[in-house]
Amino acid sequence: MKVYVLRLGHRIGRDKRVSTHCGLVSRAFGADGIIYAGEYDPHMMDSVKRVSKEWGGSFSIRYEKSWKNFVKAWKKKAGKVVHLTMYGVPIERKIDEIRNCKRLLVVVGGEKVPPEVYEIADFNISVTNQPHSEIAALAIFLDRYFQGKELKKTFRNAKKKIVPQKRGKKVIEHK
Amino acid sequence: MKVYVLRLGHRIGRDKRVSTHCGLVSRAFGADGIIYAGEYDPHMMDSVKRVSKEWGGSFSIRYEKSWKNFVKAWKKKAGKVVHLTMYGVPIERKIDEIRNCKRLLVVVGGEKVPPEVYEIADFNISVTNQPHSEIAALAIFLDRYFQGKELKKTFRNAKKKIVPQKRGKKVIEHK
Repeated sequence: MKVYVLRLGHRIGRDKRVSTHCGLVSRAFGADGIIYAGEYDPHMMDSVKRVSKEWGGSFSIRYEKSWKNFVKAWKKKAGKVVHLTMYGVPIERKIDEIRNCKRLLVVVGGEKVPPEVYEIADFNISVTNQPHSEIAALAIFLDRYFQGKELKKTFRNAKKKIVPQKRGKKVIEHK
Repeated sequence: MKVYVLRLGHRIGRDKRVSTHCGLVSRAFGADGIIYAGEYDPHMMDSVKRVSKEWGGSFSIRYEKSWKNFVKAWKKKAGKVVHLTMYGVPIERKIDEIRNCKRLLVVVGGEKVPPEVYEIADFNISVTNQPHSEIAALAIFLDRYFQGKELKKTFRNAKKKIVPQKRGKKVIEHK
């Protein structure tokens, strides 16, 4: 199973934190990597890379100048494409079918999603038909795809690890 | 059942979009309202109010100068407090117990959460022990609390309503 996330239309400054959150959520919820499109923002990508290095696992982060070429190449290699959009078909109706796709690209948009995205996607999927957040939609999508197992995922070679506490913070650091 | 969200430590500018997303996710995933603390930011709150007015329901949005007084008053009225933090006890272990609380305040922090929050909370709960996003943590928490039913929630008096589509967008507008 390979699941990657494509974050469309990043804008330096304005989208910094939302795009960072998209990367961190992708990693924490079990995706294999994130591809950023839009404006090239090495600082933002570095912050995701730093977290990934400290907290372990083998999550990949990279930039792609042409999202369209990337998606076309992905589909040629028998990959499927899910576009998360509030206008799409409710996730509950499609998730079992989508779970059969073993190479999946999950596309999350920014403010303005090009109309072609709706055409090129194999599935346009909504997480509620209400306006909310691409970060939340991504988290719920991955949660349903991995059926909650992602919450227990462990990350290899972590330098930092949390020991859950009722109160306060406990972090073990491996140097 | 009453569920409110308290967003701590909002900062004008830097947190605008993340705080807006917290509000929209709270609404879309079935909470009754959000209380913002930190810097007073009527523009940010207005953007959540506008969505709420257009898309229906009775979600409340307000500002609270002292989060501490608010939480104390909440607890006096037999309300319970859940603080979402990556350092806390995994949600899977506690959600059934938390679901028995019928008046719930879900606290989500910003960058710096005062240590007292960990003390005053009845539950410090993690959604994975990995660094990711308060928006994602909030979405997953509400999803588990409402057991997925929130995805089918309908909103009364909506001026706009989406008709889910395989491709493209369809919105019905009531004037």
